[in-house]
Amino acid sequence: MNIGIVGLGLMGGSLAKALKKYGIAKKVFGFINSEKNKKDVLELNLVDEIVDLNTLKKQSDVIILAIPVDSIISMFPSLLDIDKKTTIIDMGSTKEYIVKNIPEQIRENFIAAHPMTGTEKSGPKAAIDDLYEGKSVVLCNLEENENIHVNKALRIFQGIGMRIVVMNADEHDKHACFMSHLPHAISFSLANTVMSHEDPKSIIALAAGGFKDMSRVAKSSPIMWSNIFKQNRENLLNSIGLFEEHMKKVRKMVEEENYEELEKWMAKANTLHEIL
Amino acid sequence: MNIGIVGLGLMGGSLAKALKKYGIAKKVFGFINSEKNKKDVLELNLVDEIVDLNTLKKQSDVIILAIPVDSIISMFPSLLDIDKKTTIIDMGSTKEYIVKNIPEQIRENFIAAHPMTGTEKSGPKAAIDDLYEGKSVVLCNLEENENIHVNKALRIFQGIGMRIVVMNADEHDKHACFMSHLPHAISFSLANTVMSHEDPKSIIALAAGGFKDMSRVAKSSPIMWSNIFKQNRENLLNSIGLFEEHMKKVRKMVEEENYEELEKWMAKANTLHEIL
Repeated sequence: MNIGIVGLGLMGGSLAKALKKYGIAKKVFGFINSEKNKKDVLELNLVDEIVDLNTLKKQSDVIILAIPVDSIISMFPSLLDIDKKTTIIDMGSTKEYIVKNIPEQIRENFIAAHPMTGTEKSGPKAAIDDLYEGKSVVLCNLEENENIHVNKALRIFQGIGMRIVVMNADEHDKHACFMSHLPHAISFSLANTVMSHEDPKSIIALAAGGFKDMSRVAKSSPIMWSNIFKQNRENLLNSIGLFEEHMKKVRKMVEEENYEELEKWMAKANTLHEIL
Repeated sequence: MNIGIVGLGLMGGSLAKALKKYGIAKKVFGFINSEKNKKDVLELNLVDEIVDLNTLKKQSDVIILAIPVDSIISMFPSLLDIDKKTTIIDMGSTKEYIVKNIPEQIRENFIAAHPMTGTEKSGPKAAIDDLYEGKSVVLCNLEENENIHVNKALRIFQGIGMRIVVMNADEHDKHACFMSHLPHAISFSLANTVMSHEDPKSIIALAAGGFKDMSRVAKSSPIMWSNIFKQNRENLLNSIGLFEEHMKKVRKMVEEENYEELEKWMAKANTLHEIL
């Protein structure tokens, strides 16, 4: 099949590489807005052909949207005239708002997917061919899709080595919030705290594995992540509230020198080890 | 030289391995309290000989304390009778409280060191021979030490591939708080938030690199870390307060749907990338 990818940054570019690696697509088309990225995509030879959106729509059996979640919403009007047999897959990190807003005309074609993978990097140069291997992809509300589209999506994601997880869009957004969106908010906060109160010299001298790991995703794209925070606003506010309670708790235990309680609380956190 | 290590968990055990790997010690002695750990140390062949504390004190040119920071303080009385030529090095993660409490009789012998490295694991089985390679070690208040002791410490830490960083104990505790103690408090809080509100099934299905990295140090030893929080209490409370302000800020921006401001705040966090 021919696959057209809209957006060839970290996610789209890595997908293009994986599709080639596993020989899944006969031809991979790419559509890119930014002139700078276009140049990088050509140099990196990420796709067989860079085309305009109309050509991509006509020539592709599957169209994949690998763009920020707000841009996915903005693209809906220009996808209304696609063929009934053409599958559309979005790879956004939020799902409820997208699923709610998919136009009726393309609802059966449109697979709402979230590959649970990424790095802190962005742009075509960040693309790697094993980004998806062994990772989970969440597919939402598949009962609203026609079977031929579900089958194509399954073939693609399994073909690049992903583990399929099925759930409703609202469940997805709750879980993805705790497991990804909240951690990003925390990492941005930690990085900003340290950047405001530490000098670069000390940061370089003293950054060990713990800090590096915890601040890594604070290097992620602001546009992409402010979009996600916007589309998963309520869950995010709720989970930040729950996290803040734990920060208050640890502060109170240290303030009151309640170290016995503190050890128990840490031991509770340790139990994550039994799961991950 | 002969080196005696008190405590053979992750830090002490890894040091024993590194000393062997680089041929730095003629003989490595070990002293361990826990019977379980003693068995592991013997099986793993981490040291040349497990001895009692008196033998270790008499036979070692350098004694290294690789135990929780409260245990370092508790050991002071039993170190008062060591030879003037014997060097003591502690590897605790806090420095100010330790330096303030080193007894006068052994102040010149006692090197306050903090190797900025570790993993979330603990115990002799967690020991790895490259834990220290390429990492920083902070040496504090060296002006209070006699030269022969400073030289031995430098030879050991450089010998196992570490980068020497010199600062005052109070400076160390401030910086180590932002770069290590605060991130640990945050990671414990994140792990506890997720463990309280997510089911294991979703955690396993949806945990990607970001969450795994950010919750990794939440698996660290509760005794070790409650000790550290206790000894660096004031800095920790201060840095938690500053971090909480940033969490409030992100919550407020999302609440008020101020996404332009949010993007700028995220872009500011991104600048960490220029340093690390």
